[in-house]
Amino acid sequence: MAVEEEIGRFLVERGWHLAVAETSTGGYIGYLLTSVPGSSSYFDRSIVAYSNEAKETSLAIPPAVLQQHGAVSLVTALAMATHVQELSHVEVGLAVTGLTGPRIGRSSKPIGLTYIAVALPCGSIWWEGVIPGERTEIQRQSALKSLEMLKDALNRQATNPALSEPHYS
Amino acid sequence: MAVEEEIGRFLVERGWHLAVAETSTGGYIGYLLTSVPGSSSYFDRSIVAYSNEAKETSLAIPPAVLQQHGAVSLVTALAMATHVQELSHVEVGLAVTGLTGPRIGRSSKPIGLTYIAVALPCGSIWWEGVIPGERTEIQRQSALKSLEMLKDALNRQATNPALSEPHYS
Repeated sequence: MAVEEEIGRFLVERGWHLAVAETSTGGYIGYLLTSVPGSSSYFDRSIVAYSNEAKETSLAIPPAVLQQHGAVSLVTALAMATHVQELSHVEVGLAVTGLTGPRIGRSSKPIGLTYIAVALPCGSIWWEGVIPGERTEIQRQSALKSLEMLKDALNRQATNPALSEPHYS
Repeated sequence: MAVEEEIGRFLVERGWHLAVAETSTGGYIGYLLTSVPGSSSYFDRSIVAYSNEAKETSLAIPPAVLQQHGAVSLVTALAMATHVQELSHVEVGLAVTGLTGPRIGRSSKPIGLTYIAVALPCGSIWWEGVIPGERTEIQRQSALKSLEMLKDALNRQATNPALSEPHYS
């Protein structure tokens, strides 16, 4: 069973709903999730916030967060996940932000740097890493990694409802 | 050259920006547009508003429009395009809404029914049709049809800046 189908089955069992905030994946996470028949019963929305103004106006990310930490940062990813969860009034928020290249300006952050965050009713977990490959390969692998993170988070939530520890890998 | 690259070239030449509102395509339009290197210079955001609440809160579609005309209607598509254009403060808004199946309730609308709208500085154009195929095929073909519509609209805009007539095909 594909990971997006496993996620769907879990959400249906719980009666939970999911909202997504994407940057580097450009909408590919939403596409994978909505490729599952019946996904409209648990998939609420995905905000693909490419520009910083989009992050501010559609996801309520404070400009100070973007200025201090950057659009591609753990702080921004966590804010994206919790904000899309809150503004959508859903139980689960998923967010990904990353650098797909080409390099812009003098940033020291490597191409492929990706932050993924999952906001659950009991707290958030996250992942930081560098995903290798060309632009579209980074987009697709970031989306798949995000869905794997979400699936694992839902499974851990199922076995440990008090989960609130950060998760590194 | 792929249609998403042609669109990008046109927008860069004009110094214009683009925002998208998607339902049936689930984010696939955003993914195609952001697969182009440098797309961050003109692609602002895509709002994938799957639930009606998402259409109301993230795209400011009035509940009365959804109740009277339905989420899959020309009125909703036009509102999605103009609202995402306005709330993003961009020159071009693109929207698609459609039925990908499975059938829900007693709707008389056929699976594959799709409305596409493009909001330009001078007015809007739209397309209505039925896209055949399975769920993911409808999603992908709707996205490609939307990008073709957008490309044609930009080209017509270039040759006739006073364009404000509806376009059927």
